[in-house]
Amino acid sequence: MMICTALVFFMHLGFSFLEIGLTRQKNTVNILFKNFFVITIGLLLYAIGGFNLMYPGFEDGSLGIFKFAGFGIAAPEGGMDFGYADGGYTWWTDFLFQGMFAATAATIVSGAVAERIKLSSFMLFAILYVGLVYPIVGSWKWGGGFLDQWGFYDFAGSTLVHSVGGWAALIVIYFLGARIGKFDENGKPQALLGHNIPLASAGVLILWLGWFGFNGGSVLSADPTLTSLTLVTTCLAAAAGGIAAALFSNILYKNYDLTMFMNGVLGGLVGITAGADQMGPMDAIFIGVIAGVVIVLGIALIDRLKLDDPVGAVAVHLICGIWGTLAVGIFGELASFKQLMIQLAGIGIIGAFSVVSAVGLILAVKAITGGSLRVSKEEELKGLDLTEHGMDAYADFRLNQH
Amino acid sequence: MMICTALVFFMHLGFSFLEIGLTRQKNTVNILFKNFFVITIGLLLYAIGGFNLMYPGFEDGSLGIFKFAGFGIAAPEGGMDFGYADGGYTWWTDFLFQGMFAATAATIVSGAVAERIKLSSFMLFAILYVGLVYPIVGSWKWGGGFLDQWGFYDFAGSTLVHSVGGWAALIVIYFLGARIGKFDENGKPQALLGHNIPLASAGVLILWLGWFGFNGGSVLSADPTLTSLTLVTTCLAAAAGGIAAALFSNILYKNYDLTMFMNGVLGGLVGITAGADQMGPMDAIFIGVIAGVVIVLGIALIDRLKLDDPVGAVAVHLICGIWGTLAVGIFGELASFKQLMIQLAGIGIIGAFSVVSAVGLILAVKAITGGSLRVSKEEELKGLDLTEHGMDAYADFRLNQH
Amino acid sequence: MMICTALVFFMHLGFSFLEIGLTRQKNTVNILFKNFFVITIGLLLYAIGGFNLMYPGFEDGSLGIFKFAGFGIAAPEGGMDFGYADGGYTWWTDFLFQGMFAATAATIVSGAVAERIKLSSFMLFAILYVGLVYPIVGSWKWGGGFLDQWGFYDFAGSTLVHSVGGWAALIVIYFLGARIGKFDENGKPQALLGHNIPLASAGVLILWLGWFGFNGGSVLSADPTLTSLTLVTTCLAAAAGGIAAALFSNILYKNYDLTMFMNGVLGGLVGITAGADQMGPMDAIFIGVIAGVVIVLGIALIDRLKLDDPVGAVAVHLICGIWGTLAVGIFGELASFKQLMIQLAGIGIIGAFSVVSAVGLILAVKAITGGSLRVSKEEELKGLDLTEHGMDAYADFRLNQH
Repeated sequence: MMICTALVFFMHLGFSFLEIGLTRQKNTVNILFKNFFVITIGLLLYAIGGFNLMYPGFEDGSLGIFKFAGFGIAAPEGGMDFGYADGGYTWWTDFLFQGMFAATAATIVSGAVAERIKLSSFMLFAILYVGLVYPIVGSWKWGGGFLDQWGFYDFAGSTLVHSVGGWAALIVIYFLGARIGKFDENGKPQALLGHNIPLASAGVLILWLGWFGFNGGSVLSADPTLTSLTLVTTCLAAAAGGIAAALFSNILYKNYDLTMFMNGVLGGLVGITAGADQMGPMDAIFIGVIAGVVIVLGIALIDRLKLDDPVGAVAVHLICGIWGTLAVGIFGELASFKQLMIQLAGIGIIGAFSVVSAVGLILAVKAITGGSLRVSKEEELKGLDLTEHGMDAYADFRLNQH
Repeated sequence: MMICTALVFFMHLGFSFLEIGLTRQKNTVNILFKNFFVITIGLLLYAIGGFNLMYPGFEDGSLGIFKFAGFGIAAPEGGMDFGYADGGYTWWTDFLFQGMFAATAATIVSGAVAERIKLSSFMLFAILYVGLVYPIVGSWKWGGGFLDQWGFYDFAGSTLVHSVGGWAALIVIYFLGARIGKFDENGKPQALLGHNIPLASAGVLILWLGWFGFNGGSVLSADPTLTSLTLVTTCLAAAAGGIAAALFSNILYKNYDLTMFMNGVLGGLVGITAGADQMGPMDAIFIGVIAGVVIVLGIALIDRLKLDDPVGAVAVHLICGIWGTLAVGIFGELASFKQLMIQLAGIGIIGAFSVVSAVGLILAVKAITGGSLRVSKEEELKGLDLTEHGMDAYADFRLNQH
Repeated sequence: MMICTALVFFMHLGFSFLEIGLTRQKNTVNILFKNFFVITIGLLLYAIGGFNLMYPGFEDGSLGIFKFAGFGIAAPEGGMDFGYADGGYTWWTDFLFQGMFAATAATIVSGAVAERIKLSSFMLFAILYVGLVYPIVGSWKWGGGFLDQWGFYDFAGSTLVHSVGGWAALIVIYFLGARIGKFDENGKPQALLGHNIPLASAGVLILWLGWFGFNGGSVLSADPTLTSLTLVTTCLAAAAGGIAAALFSNILYKNYDLTMFMNGVLGGLVGITAGADQMGPMDAIFIGVIAGVVIVLGIALIDRLKLDDPVGAVAVHLICGIWGTLAVGIFGELASFKQLMIQLAGIGIIGAFSVVSAVGLILAVKAITGGSLRVSKEEELKGLDLTEHGMDAYADFRLNQH
């Protein structure tokens, strides 16, 4: 579990590399700053309140918000040893593992809004979303709330982590508008090329590594059978997603598209996340293949909707998150019509809550920061690194202007 | 074991970084695409057939090819718990660990053939080599086949993984020919400089990290004594290999050559792999030192033979793989003349089979894809990123033409 | 423990990325060469002598210097199994874990002296400092020496690793002088911009990951309560350090400074290292916040003193190392006036010894290498990559001259 926590932490490097690699060099420092902010503030918020908000009742009913950090009773009975929650891990590990998850939700948003959001707007939104929305939704299922009692199944967070982040990403990019130049005067989408493909692809491999911890750790014990099965389904879905997306985009666009390959891998990973412990190898491959196809179509759909998502976060995390959650009702041990309906209900309820919350928060942020969520046109063209940070990510290199 | 699997997976990032770092920017996307292809297709092929091809008899004799993936009996008796194979790991873990190894063999080829092979040719060759040759060779030793019965010793694959990949690399670069500009009109080798040394050296450190899993995991249990000894010998051989290569190349060429240092580390790692659990610390240092010297000479030899291996894959994986396999008969617990002869026999048989298979496959690939294995002269000069992928790895940077 | 060792090893990639990212492209290969040298020679020296120098008495009193590597008795009674030192790990693991620590001390120096030290001078200094000073100091506490008997507490090396490296860094940069252009004719410090911020920030995240191993492994057992608590305090201190440094520098300089954010994270990590197992979550946050403020002031102080530390190593490792060691007497389980005095005494004694040793060694190195520690003015302007290594880190990119 502790190792899994380390791997989930390391996913933040993966997200950072992916996001900066797929965007332009002039916004690199800004994206990195946002990522550092999300990890650090996410952990602190989770320590101060989120952990207790998400697991409100706790074993003896005596833990409330703000208690983890030492205001009040520090830990539940037995929380300090392996006996805790029958899971073979300690309360501290649980906190850290869940805290790393919490930060992930905000990181998903960070990628989608890159290259045009005001830093202060983003920071405020991230604080509110990670501090409130994520733990409230989490409490409905992982905190033993009503969705858990209905039988909604989401093993490691296709919906609770990825969709929750994905919905927020969708809402914020809708309010934010597209980057200058993303759509030409006829509304045709243009490619704003990523500036560092090696780092982007490293990001994907680091994320895949992190998923060993994300899904492996979600077994919440060292049960070797289940954990190893989970890793096998995770890796096969990733592989199948990548190959399917590469093949399908090759058929559609007659091109060996590395970005699609990478997004297919991520789509497969998000897709398997909801049911990684319930699937056999062939189930995992099917889920991955469908995720790979869905990714290619999803990215085209976002463009069609005139939305601008520089890193494909909505297609990867929201659309494949929904697909993965549904897949629990279609493939594997739990497959049944009734389960599928429960999954649909969970997706709908969490989606509605996430959308409403995100809209509310974005309007609140707009009101608080006074006016625009995005930087001025001049700042956007010049790049946020210089205008928000007075810094150049690659000072010694000559750069192309665009 | 599961953590080791994660580390072995992570080696693919190491290989990617090493390969792109030591080649030119115009072929970066192409190399990354090949690496993504190798990992994903490697896992899928191993799931569909390779695993059962490699471990054919299995415990109850009932498992055949195609059965892992769910066509037939899913798992051996007891395979699902720690009791499996007396090794303290599960059948699923075993599959994933071995599947990651399988993909490694193809990755070794990927580096050597970089910057001029047609993507389609490479993909076809990789499928056939990983899907067939690697598991057949593996079955002779790790599947309990005749080499195992002879007493051939190859702890974690100096021969079974590295040489098998290295032989293929040698054969393919022979058929492929050198990159344009590698040898001048007098046949003198020219340096075609790598474009990103930081990523190359990161690749080496990531590979070293991966070797903790590669060798550590090959103990195939959590026996603390043997595993920790293995990590000590692995690290000391890597350190000794690096220092020896740096020193020896400094004596020969009066230069502090970072690339030689890095290749020396890799050579030491490959060299210790066959006997990492049989050596003491001083043995490991000796093996590493010799590997470091061998690397420097090996790279010069490849040049002398007018072969073009952009990343030094043949010297590192084939030559040091042979050295490491021999070293089992010279140093450590198993050292004896008889063992040395057995090691030689194993090297010879596997080498002959790998060479013959690689030649056969390369001719088959030539026939299937119709004609040339390599891209046209124009495409090579322009770079494969633009011609095969329509993409630029570093869109925002100004580049030197060459 | 073995996994922690792997993570501590991986910190060397973090240091490499951080150092090259924060310096200029023309010295990249040189820095990487130094890092490879430090890891490899560090391990070899520790095998040949350091390990036995640091743990001299050992269990049966029969182990002396040079014995680990096979000259004499190879291992203590029971050292080969989990019973060793009641710690649940083996003698081999212990060696490797400690060996990785030893190399860290020299790496800290490597960053501070970057861009102007002669490679040969650095290599000689590193050999002597890692081979002698580090293990002698270590023996006083971790080898059961007099500081240990006084009750000096340094859990994972705020003083024994970070300050020992930091003092050496301070002394060497004093003797070495500033880089050309660092201070203008009026003595005003100038920014010599780092050339690759993505790699620098990746370095910080990799170091943070490594700290999971550094502090987690220093529990020296798999005690789940203590280990998980340690990881929680480590992460919270890092998060608090980062946020505090970003906020404080924003107040002082009206800028969102990513470099300060990153150094704040590192400062928090160094600060918690001495007492990571003695603190509660709120203690860790306080320690981190103070470390974050200290970092910002420390970096300004170094500039004020006309010292040139390109990566902020002195502020991070020395100043925050001192702070963390003091914090053990102020926060957490051990807090008392008496403990604070003992901590002060330890800091003073180790500081004095480190300073005296570093001065002695630097004079010895000067005498041996004949004259100047630094490269010539021409070489410095041209960059060490070309002049010491005949190599370019980014051959295909057009570069800005400065």
